Formats: sequence, structure tokens, C-alpha cells
Amino acid sequence: MSQLLVVGSLAYDSIQTPSGKADKTLGGSANYFSLAASLFAPVRVVGVVGEDYSSSDKEMLLSRKVDLSGLETVPGKTFHWEGKYEGDMNEAKTLKTELNVFEHFNPKLPAAFTETPFVFLANIAPELQTQVLSQIKNPKFVGMDTMNFWIQSKKEALLKVLSKVDVILINEGEADQLTGAKNAIEAAPKICAMGPQYVVIKRGEYGFVLYSKSEGFFLLPAMPVPNVVDPTGAGDTFAGGFFGYLTSFNQKPTFEDMKKACVVGTMCSSFTIQNFGVKAIVEVNKEKLKTRYAEFKKSVGLIEPVL
Amino acid sequence: MSQLLVVGSLAYDSIQTPSGKADKTLGGSANYFSLAASLFAPVRVVGVVGEDYSSSDKEMLLSRKVDLSGLETVPGKTFHWEGKYEGDMNEAKTLKTELNVFEHFNPKLPAAFTETPFVFLANIAPELQTQVLSQIKNPKFVGMDTMNFWIQSKKEALLKVLSKVDVILINEGEADQLTGAKNAIEAAPKICAMGPQYVVIKRGEYGFVLYSKSEGFFLLPAMPVPNVVDPTGAGDTFAGGFFGYLTSFNQKPTFEDMKKACVVGTMCSSFTIQNFGVKAIVEVNKEKLKTRYAEFKKSVGLIEPVL
Repeated sequence: MSQLLVVGSLAYDSIQTPSGKADKTLGGSANYFSLAASLFAPVRVVGVVGEDYSSSDKEMLLSRKVDLSGLETVPGKTFHWEGKYEGDMNEAKTLKTELNVFEHFNPKLPAAFTETPFVFLANIAPELQTQVLSQIKNPKFVGMDTMNFWIQSKKEALLKVLSKVDVILINEGEADQLTGAKNAIEAAPKICAMGPQYVVIKRGEYGFVLYSKSEGFFLLPAMPVPNVVDPTGAGDTFAGGFFGYLTSFNQKPTFEDMKKACVVGTMCSSFTIQNFGVKAIVEVNKEKLKTRYAEFKKSVGLIEPVL
Repeated sequence: MSQLLVVGSLAYDSIQTPSGKADKTLGGSANYFSLAASLFAPVRVVGVVGEDYSSSDKEMLLSRKVDLSGLETVPGKTFHWEGKYEGDMNEAKTLKTELNVFEHFNPKLPAAFTETPFVFLANIAPELQTQVLSQIKNPKFVGMDTMNFWIQSKKEALLKVLSKVDVILINEGEADQLTGAKNAIEAAPKICAMGPQYVVIKRGEYGFVLYSKSEGFFLLPAMPVPNVVDPTGAGDTFAGGFFGYLTSFNQKPTFEDMKKACVVGTMCSSFTIQNFGVKAIVEVNKEKLKTRYAEFKKSVGLIEPVL
């Protein structure tokens, strides 16, 4: 079976939402991504943690057969983010970001990792994304994420990465920021004009927009979840389910594959938001995904009117 | 075939959007609603206009076989609204509202109208909605709309109407305002607890959420439209397509009927936003709806992943 490599953050987050708060709870894009992706394919993690990173948090990934030989442990503290959600919970207010060991992160891939066919560059500095991608020989399919901070501060480096990937997964507000568009429908073709064949614009509680240069749009709403506890990591979980699913086919994905992968991402992220940090996604298995898909299908399947 | 009665505004609007502007263009909830609904069922309009209302604007409805015997023409000027859209165009900024002839509107239904089985109370003062509904003998299915202004200023009268209807169609922000909920998924059951069996929460560019007390959720995104010129009337057009479609079945709607009707509403409103005022919806016919549905199906149909 094909392997999937992800580079991203492993973190301890402190999160406040209207449902309560969680202090130093496990988070980071690479954790959310790996937990979802490993339901479908073997995952290799590239990242860095500090000496405070708990061995049980490593074991949680190892128990999912995630390969941690690209995870460095260095002196200092693990990346820490503090954020707060209010009102409609569509956007977090960042209270504190401590890069810690991430500040001098200089990713070097283990030899075995350099031939990984599926690669996901989660939300980290675009230079680091480039540094990882340049170490991979002949990747089959490459995806990336990014955020407002890099669009604003490192746009040139970001556009360079963008020109080399097959797909970008990006938030709606960030898609608008990147392109000057007013909405996802306008932004998607503009992003594809910057390089990638596909773009997935993540709309939070409103679902996703998938766009292909050659095949146009495909979009669906998110799963209706009444008890949203913490939206942190929903996008990373979506990306993990999406990329893990694509990796399991062991071939260059088609547009039909991408559509299904977006549905899988939607299912995975619908769990993440139901508890703080990774607490919900870590409990998910294929049976739970199947049950949730059956509910989703009931709420979302297109019903043809007689016209 | 069953008849459908609508009470609402007929107006001349002045609208500015990033695409341009339109001065004193035909608008008003009853016009948008009737143009969409009359594609499916015979429509009866209850409303009031001033002496400035153009006979060609009346003829446009008459040519769609809309019955205007409940439309009063009184001394004074027609209702006038001025609004402006900026940025993501999800909400209009009201620049001016001139009630004019609407200020002393006292709807009295022609005798023939009092036995109309399907009734839609578009966005007008809740007392006027009650006044119209109380004149209908044994309606089969009743719907309503409302807006932030009435929720704030006339909540008690509004709740009284709400307790008497089968379905309310309402904007997402207004649903939150009415219930104190943070999103549509949380708001929908709370609204149903106030009376109606069904609620349709209109999410603008993100589509709709349909909720039934007994059958739960059904939701879809809006049609991806790249050239949004003017969102005014999209919700009224949705309601018109929705209610016209339900009326055409000539029976108390089932949840399956409602799902299809929401898709029809989505198709109808996707036209309205492509030109100012009613200019686009007035050109729509069943053939155009069928073509658009075929596009919608390509972009939105749920694709089942292998889990």
C-alpha cells in the first residue's frame, strides 16, 4: 500500500469555547491529520517536539501505525497555541502563539521517507514546506495548506510552493485573501491559475467547495452537528481524511476520487468538532465513519424534483 | 389545480452592488415570489401599490397568469427601498426605506381569495400577516417569512403568526436572532418548538437547511454562480419556487416534497442573483430550470465513498 507523508505541527493547545476550556490539550496540524489519515493509509510524520512532549502522545500515533522516525525531539518546549472561540465559532481569536522548538525547525527526512508517493505539507512556513518537498523524489501527488499569516508575510515563498502542488486545501477567508476574490466560487479558479490542478476551499460549518481546472465545481455542506464543542483542527482533520483516502487508491487521483475524498474529510472533521483537541478523532474507527456517512446521506443526498 | 396566495410588497428599489447600480428597478417580495411561483402554480397576489406603479409591471405578472384582483392601487407612491451591497454581498446595507402607500395598508381579500388552500405570508408586519391569514377559510398549507426589524420590534405579534403556520422560511442571521442560537443547526429545532412543523433556514451563498420536527435535517449548498450581480430578492425567489412547487402537488406536502421544493427554490434563486431586481427571474422558464438543475446535479450530487 502507498505511503503518505505529512509535515506539520505537533502542539499543546489551550482552548476556550462556549462549551468550556481545555488546557494544554494535544493538537497541531500533524496530529489531527495523522489520526484521520491513518484510518486509510500508512502515515509518516515529519515534525519537531520538545522534551515536554508526552510519550503517551507519541504512542497514540504509533498505535495507529504512524511512522514517527521523522519526528525530532529537541531541547526546549513543544509548540503552544492559545485560542478562544466566541459567537458563531467560525474563527478563533489567537491569544498566544509560542513557537518554542518550532522556531529553529530544520526538517531533514529519513532516507526511507524520501520516496513517499503522497505528500501533504500542512500549515507551516512556506520555506519549510519547500524544504520538505525538495527532499522527496518523484512524488505522485502533493497537497498543501496555509494560513492568513503566511499569505500576508511570505506571499512570494507561498506562491512558489503553490506552483508545485497538485491540490491546496485552504479556508474560505484565506482563499479570498490570497486572490482578492469575494467568495469561494470566484476564488477557486483564481487559485488554480496559480498552479494546482485542484483546490478545496473549506467553508467551516458550511462545508467545502472542490474545484478542478478541467472539471469545474463540486460542493457539499458540512454534516449537521448540533453539539459543536471545539472547531480547532477541523480543517486539518478534513485534510487527513481526504489525503488518507486518496492514498489508499495507490494511483494518481481522478476528480471522482477527489469528490469521495472530500466526503470522507467531511465525515472525519464532523467528529473532531464534538470534543476538545484530538479527543474525538482519536476514538474514530471505520465503523463509526460508516454510521456517520449513513446519517450524512440521509441529510444531504440530492433529491431530484420533477421540472 | 390548487391556488397559491401571497401577501407581500411590490416595490421600486434602488440598488448599488460592486457590479453597478439600478435605479427604481422593480422589486418587492410579492413580485419575486410570484414570478418564481407562477412557473408551477396559479398565484393570487394581495398587496398595495401607488399611482406611480407602471401598468407594464402589472402586465408582466398578468402574462404569467397571476391574479391581481387582490392588488390595490391607492393615491400616493409605491413602496421604495434603497440598499447597497459591499464585500461578500451577504447582507445589504439599507440606505433608505419609504413605506409610502404601505403605511396604511389594510389588506382585505376578494371573496374568491378567501378559499385559497396554499398561503404565503411574505415579509411584512406580523399584524398584517395575521390579518390576511385570518381571512382564509381552512388553508391547507401556510408559510411565512419575516425579518430582523419585526423580530426586534414586534416579537409578540410575530410569535403569534409563527404558531399558526406550517413552515417558516428565514435567513440564518434572523434565525439566530429569533432563537438566541449560534448557528442554523441549533436554531432550526428551536424555531419548530415555536409552532411550525418545518423550517427552512436560508444561508445565502451557502444554501439552505430544511428541518422537520419528525424527520430531522436536509441541507444543500447553493448553486455555484460565478457572476453574482445583485442578491436582492434571492430569498423571496427561493420561497416562490419552493411554494409554487409544493402547490402544484395539490396535497399537504410530505418531507420528501419539501426536499424537492428546496431544490427548486435553489434553482430559481440562482437566476435572480445574476441580474438586478427581477430582470433575471422574469426570463426564466421550465426549460431553463431543467438545464440549471442538470448543472446543479453535476456539482452537488453526493458521491458515496468506499469506507
